[in-house]
Amino acid sequence: MRPLLLIPTFALLAAAPAPKTPTEIVAAAPAAAWRTIPAEDLLVMQLKGGQRVVIQLAPDFAPVHAANIRLLSKAKWWDGSAIYRVQDNYVVQWGKNESADPLPAGVVAKPPEEYARPVKGLPIHPLGYADAYAPKAGYALGWPVAYDPAGGTANLVHCYGYVGVGRDMAPDTGVGGELYAVIGHAPRHLDRNIAVVGRVLAGIEHLSSLPRGTEALGFYKERTSDVPVAWVRLASDVDAGERPSFQYLDTGSASFADFVRARANRKDDFFIRPAGGVDVCNAAVPVRPTPAG
Amino acid sequence: MRPLLLIPTFALLAAAPAPKTPTEIVAAAPAAAWRTIPAEDLLVMQLKGGQRVVIQLAPDFAPVHAANIRLLSKAKWWDGSAIYRVQDNYVVQWGKNESADPLPAGVVAKPPEEYARPVKGLPIHPLGYADAYAPKAGYALGWPVAYDPAGGTANLVHCYGYVGVGRDMAPDTGVGGELYAVIGHAPRHLDRNIAVVGRVLAGIEHLSSLPRGTEALGFYKERTSDVPVAWVRLASDVDAGERPSFQYLDTGSASFADFVRARANRKDDFFIRPAGGVDVCNAAVPVRPTPAG
Repeated sequence: MRPLLLIPTFALLAAAPAPKTPTEIVAAAPAAAWRTIPAEDLLVMQLKGGQRVVIQLAPDFAPVHAANIRLLSKAKWWDGSAIYRVQDNYVVQWGKNESADPLPAGVVAKPPEEYARPVKGLPIHPLGYADAYAPKAGYALGWPVAYDPAGGTANLVHCYGYVGVGRDMAPDTGVGGELYAVIGHAPRHLDRNIAVVGRVLAGIEHLSSLPRGTEALGFYKERTSDVPVAWVRLASDVDAGERPSFQYLDTGSASFADFVRARANRKDDFFIRPAGGVDVCNAAVPVRPTPAG
Repeated sequence: MRPLLLIPTFALLAAAPAPKTPTEIVAAAPAAAWRTIPAEDLLVMQLKGGQRVVIQLAPDFAPVHAANIRLLSKAKWWDGSAIYRVQDNYVVQWGKNESADPLPAGVVAKPPEEYARPVKGLPIHPLGYADAYAPKAGYALGWPVAYDPAGGTANLVHCYGYVGVGRDMAPDTGVGGELYAVIGHAPRHLDRNIAVVGRVLAGIEHLSSLPRGTEALGFYKERTSDVPVAWVRLASDVDAGERPSFQYLDTGSASFADFVRARANRKDDFFIRPAGGVDVCNAAVPVRPTPAG
């Protein structure tokens, strides 16, 4: 009994809905799958040229460094500072010399490592594909993580747009006054060697398109090449009228699981051969401005 | 019997040579480990602003597309063309509409796929670490490859700076008249879906630092935003006095094996915890201008 023979195969194929693209899956995610980021976790960097960069801090992974950054922002530490390093396929770095200027009250001068944290307490959703740098990769609390179930530690990952704390040689971990953002292929060798403290949510193009520095490590040769920073504030300290607000897709939601699966198996439109895999930095946690209303 | 107790531990440590950095290993590689790239495999793109980009073609992986590109260059196809798309963390794209302009004689209008090639005949040196996109990753003939030993195919990898052939929907594979270079995290989902035809050896910063396009997919909105290309030539057709020449480190050499090992296990200077792994795009095949003499 093969009743379906009455229906031509091509009609069956035509009737099958086209696989959704990752973008379509994100667009269709219900409101309940989105998490609004607290305003005190958003750092707004206004360049003197008028461009704006918005960074989400990661206090669940680097609480002392995040607290330092909040205090530095409240003390207007970065107002009048500059971007002074742009290294192609690597990082953009900005800030002010932590050892030359007195630190504001409350800032911890020698923060603990915060390069990794216990897996315990983290609701990790495994990526499900191999990672070249760690036993496992996945997502937790809206962030990409690499982790070692045996060792019991997890770390934030140096993906494109992720923000780390500049430091000198070990065991110094950096105060948080000099920060960098990744503008190239994920430099995962920095994982667990530097405190990752957040990610750029908006405006990364104002950093990634800057002229590359010509000195070693991409430092600008002349101070006249530096890109001036007008001010840096927590969103909670920005006037309500121009306060940014962002949401991320809950990494425990069904929509996010669908999104990762679609990123690993592109079948839409253009694609001929789904990869059947994806790396954790190539399935970036979706973010969006908080919808009005 | 513990004779070494006579020697203080710190002295032993001080006597141990510091591990070489990847850069030091490359600098110490013998001349015999370097391979000079034939001038007919080098494509020179001169922007109207004076910046120069040098691309190495990959005829071992995409012979028909590489032959097309050589013919297009000899026919001055790209002279007066433009860069018209810059998408952040993705690609810069340039060229001329393949369907609007008549193709020069000899150019194959419908090239075969060339998205992968047989493993057979490729001297592959395995990376030795997991790959999220393919059963194996490694290097062959100076290029990063992903491969499937069971299926018997290997493909060039979409790493930072790698150049692919723009195409329309399948089964079109593109002529080679519209090219793109990767300027972000390796978009490995494009592997085996597009012909990778080479890589940028020099001048990638002239592409990666361009203003991002504001239209969908990073296209420039206004034609006045386009970045004009003065000319494109094979190095073999450039005047001897300004002809570029480059070498790559033989991916079968002991120096290259040491380099990959060091990239996967950074112990020098700054590093506290070696990753114990690396992805194939984060251990990029070293290239250099051919030394004088």
